[in-house]
Amino acid sequence: MHLIKITTLLLLVVTIAAPHLSQAQQHPNLILTKDGVEKVRKNLGKVPLFDATVQSVKQEVDAEIAFGIDTPIPKDFSGGYTHQRHKINFLTAQKAGALYQILQDDKYAKYIRDMLFQYEAMYKDLPVHPQERSYARGKLFWQCLNDSNWLVYMSQAYDAIYDTLTKQERDKLENNLFRPFADFISIDNPQFYNRVHNHSTWGNAAVGMIALVMNDEELLHRALYGIEDDGLEIGGKDNDGGFIKVAGQKAGFLANLEDPFSPDGYYTEGPYYQRYAMYPFLIFGLAMHNVKPDMQVFEHKDNVLLKGVDALLNLSDADGEFFPLNDGQKGMSYYTASLVTAVDIAYQYGNQNPQLLSIAQKQNEVLLDQSGLAVAIGIRDGKTQPFVKNSINLSDGPDGKQGGVGVLRYGNEDLTLVFKYAAQGLSHGHYDKLSFSLYEKGDEVLQDYGLARFVNIGQKGGGNYLKENKTWAKTTIAHNTLSQNETMHFAGKYEVASKHHSDLYVYDDSNKNVQIISAIETNAYPGTKMHRTMAVIKNKSFDKPFLLDIMKINSEQKNQYDMPFYYLGQVLSNNFSYDSPNILKPLGNDNGYQHLYLEGKGKPSTSSTQFSWLGKGKYYTLTSATEDSDELLLTRMGANDPEFNLRREAALMIRRKDSDNTVFASVIEPHGSYSPVSELSVNSNSNIAELKVVHDDVNYTAVTIKDVKGQTSVFILSNVNASPSKQHKLKVDGKSYGWKGAYYYSDN
Amino acid sequence: MHLIKITTLLLLVVTIAAPHLSQAQQHPNLILTKDGVEKVRKNLGKVPLFDATVQSVKQEVDAEIAFGIDTPIPKDFSGGYTHQRHKINFLTAQKAGALYQILQDDKYAKYIRDMLFQYEAMYKDLPVHPQERSYARGKLFWQCLNDSNWLVYMSQAYDAIYDTLTKQERDKLENNLFRPFADFISIDNPQFYNRVHNHSTWGNAAVGMIALVMNDEELLHRALYGIEDDGLEIGGKDNDGGFIKVAGQKAGFLANLEDPFSPDGYYTEGPYYQRYAMYPFLIFGLAMHNVKPDMQVFEHKDNVLLKGVDALLNLSDADGEFFPLNDGQKGMSYYTASLVTAVDIAYQYGNQNPQLLSIAQKQNEVLLDQSGLAVAIGIRDGKTQPFVKNSINLSDGPDGKQGGVGVLRYGNEDLTLVFKYAAQGLSHGHYDKLSFSLYEKGDEVLQDYGLARFVNIGQKGGGNYLKENKTWAKTTIAHNTLSQNETMHFAGKYEVASKHHSDLYVYDDSNKNVQIISAIETNAYPGTKMHRTMAVIKNKSFDKPFLLDIMKINSEQKNQYDMPFYYLGQVLSNNFSYDSPNILKPLGNDNGYQHLYLEGKGKPSTSSTQFSWLGKGKYYTLTSATEDSDELLLTRMGANDPEFNLRREAALMIRRKDSDNTVFASVIEPHGSYSPVSELSVNSNSNIAELKVVHDDVNYTAVTIKDVKGQTSVFILSNVNASPSKQHKLKVDGKSYGWKGAYYYSDN
Repeated sequence: MHLIKITTLLLLVVTIAAPHLSQAQQHPNLILTKDGVEKVRKNLGKVPLFDATVQSVKQEVDAEIAFGIDTPIPKDFSGGYTHQRHKINFLTAQKAGALYQILQDDKYAKYIRDMLFQYEAMYKDLPVHPQERSYARGKLFWQCLNDSNWLVYMSQAYDAIYDTLTKQERDKLENNLFRPFADFISIDNPQFYNRVHNHSTWGNAAVGMIALVMNDEELLHRALYGIEDDGLEIGGKDNDGGFIKVAGQKAGFLANLEDPFSPDGYYTEGPYYQRYAMYPFLIFGLAMHNVKPDMQVFEHKDNVLLKGVDALLNLSDADGEFFPLNDGQKGMSYYTASLVTAVDIAYQYGNQNPQLLSIAQKQNEVLLDQSGLAVAIGIRDGKTQPFVKNSINLSDGPDGKQGGVGVLRYGNEDLTLVFKYAAQGLSHGHYDKLSFSLYEKGDEVLQDYGLARFVNIGQKGGGNYLKENKTWAKTTIAHNTLSQNETMHFAGKYEVASKHHSDLYVYDDSNKNVQIISAIETNAYPGTKMHRTMAVIKNKSFDKPFLLDIMKINSEQKNQYDMPFYYLGQVLSNNFSYDSPNILKPLGNDNGYQHLYLEGKGKPSTSSTQFSWLGKGKYYTLTSATEDSDELLLTRMGANDPEFNLRREAALMIRRKDSDNTVFASVIEPHGSYSPVSELSVNSNSNIAELKVVHDDVNYTAVTIKDVKGQTSVFILSNVNASPSKQHKLKVDGKSYGWKGAYYYSDN
Repeated sequence: MHLIKITTLLLLVVTIAAPHLSQAQQHPNLILTKDGVEKVRKNLGKVPLFDATVQSVKQEVDAEIAFGIDTPIPKDFSGGYTHQRHKINFLTAQKAGALYQILQDDKYAKYIRDMLFQYEAMYKDLPVHPQERSYARGKLFWQCLNDSNWLVYMSQAYDAIYDTLTKQERDKLENNLFRPFADFISIDNPQFYNRVHNHSTWGNAAVGMIALVMNDEELLHRALYGIEDDGLEIGGKDNDGGFIKVAGQKAGFLANLEDPFSPDGYYTEGPYYQRYAMYPFLIFGLAMHNVKPDMQVFEHKDNVLLKGVDALLNLSDADGEFFPLNDGQKGMSYYTASLVTAVDIAYQYGNQNPQLLSIAQKQNEVLLDQSGLAVAIGIRDGKTQPFVKNSINLSDGPDGKQGGVGVLRYGNEDLTLVFKYAAQGLSHGHYDKLSFSLYEKGDEVLQDYGLARFVNIGQKGGGNYLKENKTWAKTTIAHNTLSQNETMHFAGKYEVASKHHSDLYVYDDSNKNVQIISAIETNAYPGTKMHRTMAVIKNKSFDKPFLLDIMKINSEQKNQYDMPFYYLGQVLSNNFSYDSPNILKPLGNDNGYQHLYLEGKGKPSTSSTQFSWLGKGKYYTLTSATEDSDELLLTRMGANDPEFNLRREAALMIRRKDSDNTVFASVIEPHGSYSPVSELSVNSNSNIAELKVVHDDVNYTAVTIKDVKGQTSVFILSNVNASPSKQHKLKVDGKSYGWKGAYYYSDN
């Protein structure tokens, strides 16, 4: 790694000395290459999915050409016309460029040229965008981020028609449009450009892409390594609350590749933003691969870019929707355009993994370049294999040492646990250490709320983050994890949270019937240690796998603990009594509690509290080992939400007051099914008769699960030694258990 | 009609004289016939869908045979084991019978015989079911209804193996099981058997089916005409609140065919119960067709049974789900087993409508008899045509003169209006005259709540109707129609409501761009006349069709009027200001209002109040011509619902106080779309700038719709003369309009 870096630097020292290399570049060479075009043209009419994509892209571009070119004076936020129009322009121009190369029809070249000169004519006098909300306002768009999008795509369009333009035309475009554009988003906006953040990745890639087309080494250096002297103060913040500059911060594309990606390819902001950043990462990576192969961007950090594609695909449910960790809009999936790019590039420049073909097949479109062709040929030739998602543990942090995200899967995604013990995740991070969500196939059983935003829907705060993102979505109580004394982890302080991460205690998916992940958090609430262990267990007496959840808490002081479970569906039954108030009041005043209504308040009737609900045609029961003095709260979101920005969804919350050291042990158990068509109700009752914490001390925590037929299963965790070779012995209720490794489990 | 009836009666006089006909019957002859079996066997292996159905039914029945026969002592409600077990028994026995005939494998005959003798051994000493909730408790099940289900299916199983049994065996079964069973559900339970109701239909069919197998004319007479002297009092009620006996009540299968079906095939209880009743209607109809063809049951009342299948299919949305008019559980669709029966029988014994084949294809299974074979052959031979649902107006009432249900559809179910101006619909009726629901394809835009029940889910009130069905689902305010002074139509009195129905004013779907339905209700609130007119309009300046809704009210006194719109989705924007309370209180004390929370209360800011929401990836805007003094209420269900029996869904409610004569005019406008995958937001704003009631008097009501480009459309209704040939003239705002027929409309 070090060696590679030094080589790279040496190379740059050399190239910087000659900012405009004399050696002639061929165009296109950025994404499509001369060779690639030749190969694509030779295969036209022979590769169904590629041909179908050409046809549908052609239809789209032809419709835009018929509509005519419009480059309106910028005015709107992301929901408005001028935003949408400029966005459609760059998307269409990029496609028209590919079509020009593939079909060699001059109308596409003319369309791009005309559009570029319209922008050229307008750009030089364009003031910054009139909307003032962004910490880095763009010119065409309200934020530099979207201007960067424009340049990433337009670089490709320009490259595609480069050879059709005269030197004079190119000079005019480069001097009046592209170079000032690149300078504006970089030198004029270092607070945007010189960070480690998905915004900067777009900015760096934009500058780098146009640099490669223009063969401008100075710009390329700025793309790869950032601005040397950015004049930024340490500690400034953007409008999402993220740091602009921290001490020792590196910048540029390589730093953005280095820092936010863990060695496993996990992107610290979470899958939603990884999906967004994947496009500039991979498209600029590919451009570098084509124009500067010696720099080995794809191979950088042990192939982290291609690993990132695999990690991202694994961070999706059975329907391909990404887990909405941190700020994530639900519904975003691997069907999105940037994942078409990701999958095709990963196939072509990775090891031609035939499982990727099944995703490409579902996407039903390919890139219009050599990688898309390779994918379409692979599919045509019957090489497709199903993409199998297994359990996976992804480290977080540049060195993989800042916690992570574990995904435990049973069967063919029959039950999927997503467990987060990661770092803060930059400005898009939420305050939810040791939180989890649970899926049965593509349906959420216990949800992560995701973000509070309606991306691009102008009516909702201009399509930007809503204030409820901060007051609700980011809060601890909005997540399936522990809240202490109605406060947030790290007191909701980004500066503090950014310094810490949870630590993995054990991850073991080797036994498919007992998969376990366990992590420890000591900084979220100073003086309190949380140790959460989750196991996906397939007990032979149960039809379906269940989740065992043990949260062990040790604190220096007495606290109130809240453990919410955000179920989705209709309440069916429970074994406790509760009061249901006639009027609904907010549960608290801040930290997210102000957004919860209290719909019911009860007390356990037995030591195994049960609560059942009907999700989408499936039954679920939460069984929890409760104490007599626990409170059982039925909550619903929507309080103090006059604009109806939040969904009206519910939770069961277990509240334990005046406790220092304690254990919350629960089982979340999917069972049975209901069909409104056959009206058959199958296994609508829980199979669990009793859940008990039978032992708990510093060294060991033991839980028993008795099923309705009287069989008892035992789970024991060694709390202090997770070594797989360590021998343990424990006597529980007069019975001796001996085992090797972090945990013991026996079905009966 | 009269002639046919007399013939039928004469025939029966003859047959009753000879209760056991000497002419030998062949078995099977009930559903499968000797000829049918021969034909089926000849085609085995040649008709893919039929063969596939045989295979899947075989798999199912073989699994049950392997499981073994269990006939537990009855104990549970519909959610419990004994209920489910006995239900699976009769369903499996019927299938085993078909398999025995088709595959001629003795194991199926043996399975049925063994099961029947287990029932025979248990039945004679069986007391009535221990659960006491039903007005007519069964023996195997908690209500006679389910016992009747048992007999309808078991009759077919018995018929299938009739010839394999000795005379002694048959005598034993008939004397100890079938005849006492038939007597119990009829003579011992006249309050169940001798009504016009879906319950009785099952009872009558059950008695009739076993009568045909046993060749027992006395039982058959009882099936067709009921019990002559039932000893029932006039005015008694069942546990759903329905009348058991009204003056002049007829009984028996033919009365149940006569009364609840309109000449158009609409079943007065609504599609959910029509779907349920269709099976006994058709299966006994078919049995009669096979055994007593002279009685022409299929042809009865101008083919009303087969018309009923067509009506029912037309009462479904684009996904095949039935509109939940009256008591209807959402999600029930034409994929349910009774619709397989209905579609196959309607195909075979109707006019082999090739459009039915496309539904059968979606159902992906067929009946294992000659009609299923015919359908499967039709599909195999490529005869399938798409089932096209057009606009349709279905009359209600035995003579078609008790109002009805209109369905206006634009395009390929792009927009579907369901407008209810029907009779009460027996005990499953709701108090919602002139109510409507609206669909875009298979998605609800404005919903009908349906029933408050979780059918067969034991945890929810034993799977039976919940008390919220009465306190919420049946109430007027639970529906998209007018509530006056916070009371229910007919004061919620079933006795009163059952005497009345709304009257059609005009129905005209001849112009696909302006389809209209209009009806008048004068009895729901004595002294108040409601005249509601709904038009599905495709305006050439709008991308999508919209719904124009004009409710004209004339009252002898001043009232408070509430007009709710039960939207589904997330609130996007509105053009009025409102207060959002910090605590939520119920909106009222009874008539359903006790179940609504008030989430916001505002006043119109302009005369065209607008309210937008995002449904499933589609935008919608309600524009309503409001008055300054109107109140705009944002409500949500869930108040006074401690068991969480209601869904937490919302409405915008327009409240107008202290008014006698007034008009509510609104447009519900679907527009644009949003995708969380592309994050593209298209046409998220309404196209309407202003909606105005520009004229309103006894004779005419006129409304203008101005779009955002300034184009104005005009709709004028003649309030008193709907004759298509009548000439009208009206001056509005200085402009003269002249037209022929009930309404005038012009796009601009």
